[in-house]
Amino acid sequence: MKTRAAVAFEAKKPLEIVEVDLDGPRHGEVLVEIKATGVCHTDAYTLDGLDSEGLFPSILGHEGAGVVLEVGPGVTSLKPGDHVIPLYTPECRQCKSCLSRKTNLCTAIRGTQGKGLMPDGTSRFSYKGQAIHHYMGCSTFANHTVLPEIALAKIRPDAPFDKACYIGCGVTTGVGAVIHTAQVEPGANAVVFGLGGIGLNVIQGLKLVGADKIIGVDLNDSKAEWGARFGMTHFVNPLKVQGDIVAHLVELTGGGADYTFDCTGNVDVMRQALEACHRGWGESIVIGVAPAGAEIRTRPFQLVTGRVWKGSAFGGARGRTDVPKIVDWYMDGKIEIDPMITHTLPLERINEAFDLMHAGESIRSVIVF
Amino acid sequence: MKTRAAVAFEAKKPLEIVEVDLDGPRHGEVLVEIKATGVCHTDAYTLDGLDSEGLFPSILGHEGAGVVLEVGPGVTSLKPGDHVIPLYTPECRQCKSCLSRKTNLCTAIRGTQGKGLMPDGTSRFSYKGQAIHHYMGCSTFANHTVLPEIALAKIRPDAPFDKACYIGCGVTTGVGAVIHTAQVEPGANAVVFGLGGIGLNVIQGLKLVGADKIIGVDLNDSKAEWGARFGMTHFVNPLKVQGDIVAHLVELTGGGADYTFDCTGNVDVMRQALEACHRGWGESIVIGVAPAGAEIRTRPFQLVTGRVWKGSAFGGARGRTDVPKIVDWYMDGKIEIDPMITHTLPLERINEAFDLMHAGESIRSVIVF
Repeated sequence: MKTRAAVAFEAKKPLEIVEVDLDGPRHGEVLVEIKATGVCHTDAYTLDGLDSEGLFPSILGHEGAGVVLEVGPGVTSLKPGDHVIPLYTPECRQCKSCLSRKTNLCTAIRGTQGKGLMPDGTSRFSYKGQAIHHYMGCSTFANHTVLPEIALAKIRPDAPFDKACYIGCGVTTGVGAVIHTAQVEPGANAVVFGLGGIGLNVIQGLKLVGADKIIGVDLNDSKAEWGARFGMTHFVNPLKVQGDIVAHLVELTGGGADYTFDCTGNVDVMRQALEACHRGWGESIVIGVAPAGAEIRTRPFQLVTGRVWKGSAFGGARGRTDVPKIVDWYMDGKIEIDPMITHTLPLERINEAFDLMHAGESIRSVIVF
Repeated sequence: MKTRAAVAFEAKKPLEIVEVDLDGPRHGEVLVEIKATGVCHTDAYTLDGLDSEGLFPSILGHEGAGVVLEVGPGVTSLKPGDHVIPLYTPECRQCKSCLSRKTNLCTAIRGTQGKGLMPDGTSRFSYKGQAIHHYMGCSTFANHTVLPEIALAKIRPDAPFDKACYIGCGVTTGVGAVIHTAQVEPGANAVVFGLGGIGLNVIQGLKLVGADKIIGVDLNDSKAEWGARFGMTHFVNPLKVQGDIVAHLVELTGGGADYTFDCTGNVDVMRQALEACHRGWGESIVIGVAPAGAEIRTRPFQLVTGRVWKGSAFGGARGRTDVPKIVDWYMDGKIEIDPMITHTLPLERINEAFDLMHAGESIRSVIVF
């Protein structure tokens, strides 16, 4: 079939809206009509050529929502008409990782996904006879896409696509890091570094679980209002702190935070986040993606005296199991999404969404088809 | 009173055996006759001037066992005749740390202990009228010493002093890191870097909890026999591995270790230990003490993909609660100590114990009074 897609033909060039060819679903695969997709920093990271493993040409996008149109042989858990969110972290429930009960990082299709291919080693997309790579196993910048059954979360049909799509990455990454990775308990004090589309979701996750102090840190004062909107109790702009930011945060938290979250991708901030943790038990969760080759560092004494350094990918959430729950929480009003979707644009204007993000003018832009 | 002690008058000089003056126990304090004490790398670290916070003159030693001779006013949990192990990590059961249930790092007397003083800010030791510092709140290189009640674990009276003393540091640090910090489960695969007095205790801790593969890593082939003696299943000498040691260990563990332990204090080894962990859930525990100013480093991707970096001090053990249990395990034959005590010497020969350690000829030397 033919479908419209925003294609990244090469790095550092705008996406081009063209009509591409899409093969139908093969064994274990599902054809999905994408109704809406968010534009995330990770898409920009790849498009800007910062990901050394980035592949071109490709159809980017990994934060979508849509409807199942057709299922291939062997698909048992989905049928045409089901509403779904594509999962860049699949959940096969059969691999060593899924069965470990310790991680959400399913490895069933990891090898081919990293190569921009479907599990059988081929691509479903092509343009003028040339194969186009899939991206993060999703490629939601296409009006139609094909995914493995294990990479689709079935969600309730009454959730609006143009909001639910954000649960495909940003919401789950932020809220999940609180709930699944850190397992923050009521009454905890926490610090969130970077109040963008992830950080704000960490903040509302902290509010959801009953944290006490929810301290937001950002260089941009305009984020103070955003943070407060979702549950932040204190705002700190490091540029306006006299002296050491870590010492300031340790004092503000009465000895150090129980949990800190880096949502900046800056390795120096990651160090501050660790060292602002309480001696004995403070845990720091790295969420941000650092530039290629950048390294975190600290004195091992920080760990020996009880601080824990962790990371979180997709919020530690198992996509098929946990994403539908987060959709429920949104529909039940336990978490908010609508105010974070600052811009909604048609596919033709997708490059504007990247511009808005780079200019810091959007929290999240959503593309509707 | 007068007592014999090995005094560190200055850094990088041998200890001197002299008769010092010891004041009696004040409120909340206990006078202990030390019967035996181990000589640990941490004592050497301070004596060699590597600890920038080291104080002189002082009476070193922190791995002892002895008998209560006298208790000061207000002491309720101990009486003359009780057998005890001094605790460089006290357990007050009242401070924020003790009440957190998340750490063993009691902070009740942290400030004065770091200054080489008793909680009231004075020293009990003096020599020719000059105050001598306490060390790690213990000073077990003296035949008699005074400690706060909260820094003494009461142990069963039938445990031999010249073996039980090792539980005051090395045994608890190693076994505890497995049980309390990592909470290793049966069937786990683990790698232990550095098979000295701590590493061998990590190994026997892993055996105790039913780990599967227990892989020891050391540059010294003679440690292979030592490791096997306590439960090690595989030995790896990095000097004899072709290619990358991390890749070798990941292969040997079928994808990475569930738990790794650094018992070397080398920050490059700490990085290897983290990166040899299994994607998704592997946890690396830093036990070794690094040189002043040394920093650990890695790519944050290691954490984002599920590896966890932790540390352990005194094996995560609460001294008064957990140390008596470890003494029981020794007496019940669940863990071994006797073969690790390679040398037993009188106080007069304590400098030989340091020489044996530096030469790598001892696992542990114990001084008896």
